[in-house]
Amino acid sequence: MAQPGGSKPKRKVVDIHTHMYPAEYISILSSRTEIPLVRTFPSPSSPDPDPRLILLEAELPALEKALQDPSAPVPGRPLTKHFTSLPQKLHFMTTHGIDISVLSLANPWLDFLPASEAGAIAERINTAFEEMCSSSSNRAFFFFAALPLTAPLETIVSCITHVSQCLPHCRGVILGTSGLGSGLDDPALLPILRSLADHNLPVFLHPHYGLPSAVYGPRAAEEYGHVLPLALGFPMETTIAVARMYLAGVFDAVPELRMILAHSGGTLPFLAGRIESCVLHDERLAKEAEKKKTTASRRRRRSVWEVLRSQVYLDAVVYSEVGLKTAVEASGGGREGAERLMFGTDHPFFPPVGDEADSQGEWESVRLNAEAVKRALGEGSEEAELVMGGNAIRVLRLFE
Amino acid sequence: MAQPGGSKPKRKVVDIHTHMYPAEYISILSSRTEIPLVRTFPSPSSPDPDPRLILLEAELPALEKALQDPSAPVPGRPLTKHFTSLPQKLHFMTTHGIDISVLSLANPWLDFLPASEAGAIAERINTAFEEMCSSSSNRAFFFFAALPLTAPLETIVSCITHVSQCLPHCRGVILGTSGLGSGLDDPALLPILRSLADHNLPVFLHPHYGLPSAVYGPRAAEEYGHVLPLALGFPMETTIAVARMYLAGVFDAVPELRMILAHSGGTLPFLAGRIESCVLHDERLAKEAEKKKTTASRRRRRSVWEVLRSQVYLDAVVYSEVGLKTAVEASGGGREGAERLMFGTDHPFFPPVGDEADSQGEWESVRLNAEAVKRALGEGSEEAELVMGGNAIRVLRLFE
Repeated sequence: MAQPGGSKPKRKVVDIHTHMYPAEYISILSSRTEIPLVRTFPSPSSPDPDPRLILLEAELPALEKALQDPSAPVPGRPLTKHFTSLPQKLHFMTTHGIDISVLSLANPWLDFLPASEAGAIAERINTAFEEMCSSSSNRAFFFFAALPLTAPLETIVSCITHVSQCLPHCRGVILGTSGLGSGLDDPALLPILRSLADHNLPVFLHPHYGLPSAVYGPRAAEEYGHVLPLALGFPMETTIAVARMYLAGVFDAVPELRMILAHSGGTLPFLAGRIESCVLHDERLAKEAEKKKTTASRRRRRSVWEVLRSQVYLDAVVYSEVGLKTAVEASGGGREGAERLMFGTDHPFFPPVGDEADSQGEWESVRLNAEAVKRALGEGSEEAELVMGGNAIRVLRLFE
Repeated sequence: MAQPGGSKPKRKVVDIHTHMYPAEYISILSSRTEIPLVRTFPSPSSPDPDPRLILLEAELPALEKALQDPSAPVPGRPLTKHFTSLPQKLHFMTTHGIDISVLSLANPWLDFLPASEAGAIAERINTAFEEMCSSSSNRAFFFFAALPLTAPLETIVSCITHVSQCLPHCRGVILGTSGLGSGLDDPALLPILRSLADHNLPVFLHPHYGLPSAVYGPRAAEEYGHVLPLALGFPMETTIAVARMYLAGVFDAVPELRMILAHSGGTLPFLAGRIESCVLHDERLAKEAEKKKTTASRRRRRSVWEVLRSQVYLDAVVYSEVGLKTAVEASGGGREGAERLMFGTDHPFFPPVGDEADSQGEWESVRLNAEAVKRALGEGSEEAELVMGGNAIRVLRLFE
């Protein structure tokens, strides 16, 4: 595919951070009375409004207010066709020059389902994603599968086998930070992580739970919109989850595990040095490391940096040149670092404000991330092209 | 002061992040039964041990365990003379080539004092710092004062006047994130921040409260030492506090306010882009901004970046080249960015492990931060020298 003027062929642009809700998922949310849920809030001034998607616990005060007072601001975000329609996704991709999207179910995935239903629902949701991908004739779509983490272990493991062997467009799984309910440092999760590694399925780690609302203080819910839970709670949640995995030795226990961290690692690239120093300077950890030396386990501790540069990839959803440079540097710097980053949009979240219901034009949120890559790595550079698509094609085997 | 060989004169090295506990403060901690406290834990194997300093709520489970079971690991950290002795501070400075230290009371400052006592204690503690500084004949010490934030407003404001007018070595104040009890975005704090700005006293913002322990999961307290609260809780707390100030419009309300953020801003340099994007894309904030346009307040919103580059300074306590580069870039990049960073050690925290009680040699934690400056800005470069001391001399008027 040559560009006008005989310049070099355009490399594929791949969006690895882009979400969809299949119809069945919306039905489930619409039947719920607790967050996450979908609900309409008719008012005298707007008798037939769009349904609203309310996902975050931080949105509970706004939800309660809206249920009591029809004149209160509606909570959550509008459930537009950007969340549900594949033609809309394709339109968005065309608008932004994206050739391939690696779709994933948006948060909170299947984490809230009753154990008895989760396995069957997971199978249907993952099949719905496979059907979206195979409906496109030009290999525009792949997907990360969702796991039924509330189901018994054997159900989860059999889901992994199923998506790996029976759904040819599956290229990994998307996971939240709760694991089986007590985090990704839970030893009970190891068989699942091992199974994912055995099937060569990377984990796309994505936040959802944020931090307890109290940390934002008494004025946040009324005055700061969604900013603090989304801008800070999300990346901090991701960082805590990965640091817990690191401290629990999960990366050593499953050396073939590959993680792709949403939002450029939350804030891990900036805090890796501090984590590393705190480990080095912790009296108790040092004593335990000393004890271990006298036992069978003599393996040298791998630094946070080493793990970042061997088992971790970062998406490029960080909205600034400063952030993107940091992510590249933390991943090894230069070409080596650039090989660990992958462009994403976070579509359909962060639509242009004031235009949520339609949003057919260019999205500022996408532009910020694409600009960050250009500015940090140089427009048209080999490194920029790797981040925009080459890495995803290689790491996720999109042409196999 | 010329160096051997006639090379250019050595620039002063200034440590702006270095703590002390005056004797009275240790007496207060020793009389307490709740965290923060100082306590000894005698055991059959160690009948006359060093007292332990227990500062963090996250240390409560370990404290309770140690009180019940004399064979359990002792909580907190050893209260060495590094926390209390000025000759020891001078020895530490000599070891690490530090010419000037800007001392500050360590966390949790005076935040826990009864309202009726806080004012008088603050006066005595700040006077103790002034005496330490004036006891040195070679201008080796300045200090950030502590404020009696639990006292009535007029007591706090009169403390500010006092430290500014009567304590000639005072160069700012150190503040935690709790303010008057509900955060630094509390409108009731504005008179205090205005008074500080009027007296040309920068605020050194330092974390203490971290995040609720639950976010670290069920295994952290037993297995990960202090790592998660210190490595992640501290910088996340700082970031949330500053983001709340930004969203509340504190920087606009007090345009002469200058903040120095501990630990290179927590993680603000990395997350500034995401905060900025979340503000841009928030439906509710956009509507409110639209409403305001029709009223008197027509001022354009200043971006997070603009605030970082005009009212914020960062210390250089980030333990990595990656982190330091990010802090410089977020502060404007190049010379402009380098002018906003100031070297610090966080002494007497993070002593060499296994050697806490003595620690007379070089500290790895200090080396990590000094190396980060050299690597990020170039050894001997003008920018590195600014970060190592020139900026502190200029911003804190250390030669006036």
